[in-house]
Amino acid sequence: MLTANYVGDHRIDIREQDPQPVGAGQVQIEVAYTGICGTDLHILHGSMDARVSMPAIVGHEMSGVVAAVGEGVTGWSPGDHVTVMPLDWDGTCPACLAGNQHICQNLNFIGIDSPGALQRLWNVDAGVVLRLPEGLRLDHAALVEPTAVAVHDVRRGEVSAGDHVVVIGGGPIGVLIATVARHSGAEVVVVEVDAGRRTAVAELGFEVLDPTATDQTAWVNRWTGDAGADVVFEVSGAAAAVLGATDLAKVRGTVVVVAIHPQPRPVNLQRVFWRELRLLGARVYERTDFERAIELLDDGVIPADALITSTRPITETAAAFADLESGRAMKVLIDLTATGDAT
Amino acid sequence: MLTANYVGDHRIDIREQDPQPVGAGQVQIEVAYTGICGTDLHILHGSMDARVSMPAIVGHEMSGVVAAVGEGVTGWSPGDHVTVMPLDWDGTCPACLAGNQHICQNLNFIGIDSPGALQRLWNVDAGVVLRLPEGLRLDHAALVEPTAVAVHDVRRGEVSAGDHVVVIGGGPIGVLIATVARHSGAEVVVVEVDAGRRTAVAELGFEVLDPTATDQTAWVNRWTGDAGADVVFEVSGAAAAVLGATDLAKVRGTVVVVAIHPQPRPVNLQRVFWRELRLLGARVYERTDFERAIELLDDGVIPADALITSTRPITETAAAFADLESGRAMKVLIDLTATGDAT
Repeated sequence: MLTANYVGDHRIDIREQDPQPVGAGQVQIEVAYTGICGTDLHILHGSMDARVSMPAIVGHEMSGVVAAVGEGVTGWSPGDHVTVMPLDWDGTCPACLAGNQHICQNLNFIGIDSPGALQRLWNVDAGVVLRLPEGLRLDHAALVEPTAVAVHDVRRGEVSAGDHVVVIGGGPIGVLIATVARHSGAEVVVVEVDAGRRTAVAELGFEVLDPTATDQTAWVNRWTGDAGADVVFEVSGAAAAVLGATDLAKVRGTVVVVAIHPQPRPVNLQRVFWRELRLLGARVYERTDFERAIELLDDGVIPADALITSTRPITETAAAFADLESGRAMKVLIDLTATGDAT
Repeated sequence: MLTANYVGDHRIDIREQDPQPVGAGQVQIEVAYTGICGTDLHILHGSMDARVSMPAIVGHEMSGVVAAVGEGVTGWSPGDHVTVMPLDWDGTCPACLAGNQHICQNLNFIGIDSPGALQRLWNVDAGVVLRLPEGLRLDHAALVEPTAVAVHDVRRGEVSAGDHVVVIGGGPIGVLIATVARHSGAEVVVVEVDAGRRTAVAELGFEVLDPTATDQTAWVNRWTGDAGADVVFEVSGAAAAVLGATDLAKVRGTVVVVAIHPQPRPVNLQRVFWRELRLLGARVYERTDFERAIELLDDGVIPADALITSTRPITETAAAFADLESGRAMKVLIDLTATGDAT
């Protein structure tokens, strides 16, 4: 079978490899679609070389069909449509013992710290497999993982019906957060610097601001009757966005830090103090978020077709990364069914 | 009567002024003791010239005795021992309407935005007056306001019995937070760079770290079985402390921003994200915090005698500020009874 491997030096190699036999306690999945995301791009750029073991088969947003089940596994049969919640916690660290397994202090993130889904036949522990409804298209189901991120972020921010929500950054995670927040009954505005992305976000029915052309603080104050936003999601990763985010939040409002900021960022702590703001980190998802994400995709709440910009065979994985890197794409999928690989 | 006035240019003038007659709805208080604090020092340094109307009678930590009551005031009689919660909210802004009157968007902070307690006969609206127990010494009662800050901070941080709490900064507010947290059943360590303050804090029975000599992160990890602290209070105002605070908190732990940071500070948002931390601003207090502070002082929980470094007559207010500025003092009180002022 073909596998897509990060081999260092900004390179992806497509290699022919023999599938591994399914082990005890494992499920073998015939991968259908694998999405690639910003984290995979960070890996390609070498920013995560300390974590990945090269050659590294990446990919953690996926859908597929059960091909075989290992010894001792019950509840799964060949043909079941499934996805994987790619978190493998140790269960013994202080975070796990306190109930926060999803951010285990020794987390194995499958697809980063261990082999991922850019391979046709993928063996995973049965515990990380979730069932997909039969009616949910498998390409759409490759969006379950990023949707679960958004569900988790919105839940962490405690968004309620009627809330005024600002999403800074109109990329795929920003759009998913905006979609989930709107579905929760919130009024949502998206702030995005890129004109192409603003158009794409507006086409999904969202109010969109260009922060370089609009005084976003004044706009939000008008929008909220001088109160400020209930919840602000920082999804852009930009230093200027972090500095501005605190000005948008109401007294006792919340700023959720979703984006990765490799460097410490200047934060207006005077504003945090003055308005008794709450800054929350939000990372990955819990089981309930994954289950909710599946429902939202199955119910058609997530605009999957609009979000999937391109779908390429595994042989074009490098080109898929280039699509993503251009900043023009939202979600880019690899179609593992398209290679004619014998399974 | 004598009044202490900030007149700009780092100067305090002591002036003779006629007392104002008590107005309708007001209580006239014969001020006994007024504490001066870091905020008053900021005023003296000119950092708050945009807020204060010079000449400005400052002072917002006080105790006294009711001298007279204005028309329409019920419930107060001359001789009652009282303190003042110096917050005057408008009741109509979005923050007030949402129940956060204490951080009203148009707050009049009495003693900063309007005349304060460095005058022998002080007229205030009856609504801001709180009763003191007869048995509570009036010099100790001048510590109610800063104690209420600490009670609010600890409540905002949701400190629970058994929690591991780090207080960064061993000045008066840091010591009060440490004291209130310990009284709530938490285990507390104080981080302080100044040797003299470390000695003072240790004498109150607290574990104290010198962050320049000890790897505070390693220390906290050992102390907490590799979990990290439940709650970290940033009370120092130092940029390095902010940057280090996030390393001390456990997964889903809390960092409470108590200190004033006039400049945006670099914050390790990667750590906020990674551990799903919560950064909370905490400002002033609510009525319940003030009432609890009175109880804690009355019960002897607050080491008032140890905290009151010096007490001076109003004529020595400039010297009192110099005491505070030296960094050697904890609380400095002005004794308004010591001038022989006719009342």
